[in-house]
Amino acid sequence: MNNFDYLVPTEIFFGKGQIKVLGENIKKYGSRVLLVYGGGSIKKNGIYDDVIKILKDNAISFWELPGVEPNPRVTTVRKGIEICRENSIELVLAVGGGSTIDCSKVIAAGYYYKGDSWDIVVDPGKISKVLPIASILTLSATGSEMDENAVITNWETKEKIGTAHQEMQPKFSILDPTYTFTVPKNQTAAGTADIMSHIFENYFSKTTSAFVQNRMAEAMLKTCIKYGKIAIDDPQNYEARANLMWTSSLAINGLLSEGKETEWTVHGMEHELSAIYDITHGVGLAILTPNWMKYALSEDTVDKFTEYGINVWDIDSSKDKYTIANEAIQNTRDFFNSLGIPDTLAKVGINEENFEVMAKKATKWGTIGRFKPLEAKDIVNIYNASL
Amino acid sequence: MNNFDYLVPTEIFFGKGQIKVLGENIKKYGSRVLLVYGGGSIKKNGIYDDVIKILKDNAISFWELPGVEPNPRVTTVRKGIEICRENSIELVLAVGGGSTIDCSKVIAAGYYYKGDSWDIVVDPGKISKVLPIASILTLSATGSEMDENAVITNWETKEKIGTAHQEMQPKFSILDPTYTFTVPKNQTAAGTADIMSHIFENYFSKTTSAFVQNRMAEAMLKTCIKYGKIAIDDPQNYEARANLMWTSSLAINGLLSEGKETEWTVHGMEHELSAIYDITHGVGLAILTPNWMKYALSEDTVDKFTEYGINVWDIDSSKDKYTIANEAIQNTRDFFNSLGIPDTLAKVGINEENFEVMAKKATKWGTIGRFKPLEAKDIVNIYNASL
Repeated sequence: MNNFDYLVPTEIFFGKGQIKVLGENIKKYGSRVLLVYGGGSIKKNGIYDDVIKILKDNAISFWELPGVEPNPRVTTVRKGIEICRENSIELVLAVGGGSTIDCSKVIAAGYYYKGDSWDIVVDPGKISKVLPIASILTLSATGSEMDENAVITNWETKEKIGTAHQEMQPKFSILDPTYTFTVPKNQTAAGTADIMSHIFENYFSKTTSAFVQNRMAEAMLKTCIKYGKIAIDDPQNYEARANLMWTSSLAINGLLSEGKETEWTVHGMEHELSAIYDITHGVGLAILTPNWMKYALSEDTVDKFTEYGINVWDIDSSKDKYTIANEAIQNTRDFFNSLGIPDTLAKVGINEENFEVMAKKATKWGTIGRFKPLEAKDIVNIYNASL
Repeated sequence: MNNFDYLVPTEIFFGKGQIKVLGENIKKYGSRVLLVYGGGSIKKNGIYDDVIKILKDNAISFWELPGVEPNPRVTTVRKGIEICRENSIELVLAVGGGSTIDCSKVIAAGYYYKGDSWDIVVDPGKISKVLPIASILTLSATGSEMDENAVITNWETKEKIGTAHQEMQPKFSILDPTYTFTVPKNQTAAGTADIMSHIFENYFSKTTSAFVQNRMAEAMLKTCIKYGKIAIDDPQNYEARANLMWTSSLAINGLLSEGKETEWTVHGMEHELSAIYDITHGVGLAILTPNWMKYALSEDTVDKFTEYGINVWDIDSSKDKYTIANEAIQNTRDFFNSLGIPDTLAKVGINEENFEVMAKKATKWGTIGRFKPLEAKDIVNIYNASL
């Protein structure tokens, strides 16, 4: 096991009705709030009204930044920072999924940064201080509610880049599974694929000595496999929504990654796709993942895939190791298909036109990944296999 | 899944050589430290010298409280509080295992409490403020390095009672697996049994909807089963020591317990044993656990034991459910035997003399447990089965 530092100071209020703690917890940090949200679904399902009522009841002043995009833009970040500065905001409250929370994080960090906010996306080292952030989660997917990461898109330069800072971990997050009851089937599917992809990026690694991390990753994969389809077929199934929600947070808060090498190649490849084509992140991940697995499978990696097949998919361990590995990969694809996620890039309107450009951008700082290092040509191959 | 609040603000510095961060991290809280430790093993293995050197190099003043007992006494807590008050201590630094950390926690809480410190053990509600606590872990067992709990023994009243307060979570803990290389075989065995018992107390529950928690518990049980024996046979096996150490912290920091009913009956029964007989906590737990399992097995609970057998011990799922359950229980006993832990109370010098008294004390606030509620007579039966 490798050395690590682990610190997750985010307080999680999990369960039905936990919105009740919102007022008192905001007031620990101030009484001037920027309320950040997305396309307006929170107005349809009543969450917006609940939040506004609590803010008013607690005499908390608030300003609004609606319309955060599914792949949040740096232009929206800039707007948010302006509102914060004009109104001496004391806490940024994200109500939504990962995009809204990510956008809020960079607004909170950008508030203290003198230059343009794209700088702190490109270079997290430029982040020094961050306004307190809180979140009310409405989509189980990115884990942004309990981690220090944010991914922002620059539509002018067609770049989608991740940044991170310890102070960007939310002070508290409210996770009420009933808030995800109205999430449409396709977004539930994409969210589940996103959670699984985070687990895969942490799981596929040569650090076999991180045994407890690897077994916990399998525990979380089993949870997604059990509940992903249930949440789609029965959207108000509390047990399914609750397990997916808590797993989304645990999958990427360090529990599975600390102490080992991690991979993060499929995310790198997908960010290039959605930077140009603005597709749903989880869909891109689901399309690429089984093709990445096939490409990564070799004499050097087969034991890990075999472990995955036996421990996650309960494949008979007496079978030949390549048989187990290939069955596990096929099961992964079949599972994503069962959620109704498109299985080729063509089906989401992407052709080979930009493969070379995207592959080059994904590897601009060199090969990516350590379990299966990828150069630009490897990425083109995986894109092609995904067509 | 039940509602829960989850917050673990302890920063973990994990791995070889992490002691290097001690000075800078203490200085975030002050420069007057109470150094708490146990029977002196840290003087033999060099950890004491390393700590003292860092304190001196960082101009940190320190006072010492050595000799904390394996079942730490309230008399020692009182001594510690006195030193803290006399010297305006700013941080309590525990160097040792769970006993030392538990003792340090109650010293830190008692510092601000005007009455006798036994009061805050009996009634955690009386704790208001707590001095900052840090720990350097030298034994993988109790998880006290990353939780809010402390267990203290009153030798006069023959009581061993647990207390807890959120502020008693250490500010930071240094977990260097090499610091456990010199732990004797019997203590490594008892520590492993203690970790497993924490997992069992969280695992055996009727809250089947807490799926991800239950699968993570199995992941951690597998870790203990894989590495417990290795650490005993090969004490300097870093991989084994590292996995046991990190699992000891994760097993009881809320990850496995939040969102579900938990049991905590074997701990209740064992505390009565060690309050009177001063036996090693983990040994008492290992003796009682399989007998508790046999006693708890019924039509009402067999499915959970079957799940345990299949998922943890890889028992063939096509077998009859009682066969699976009983095999799993026998495997648990065999595993503890393989670690060299005594398997009866008689072997640690305990006879039936105090069974009735202890059972009555364990149930003084009513039946204990919810998976298998136990009255005094049930506890006597389990003690008798353990003779």
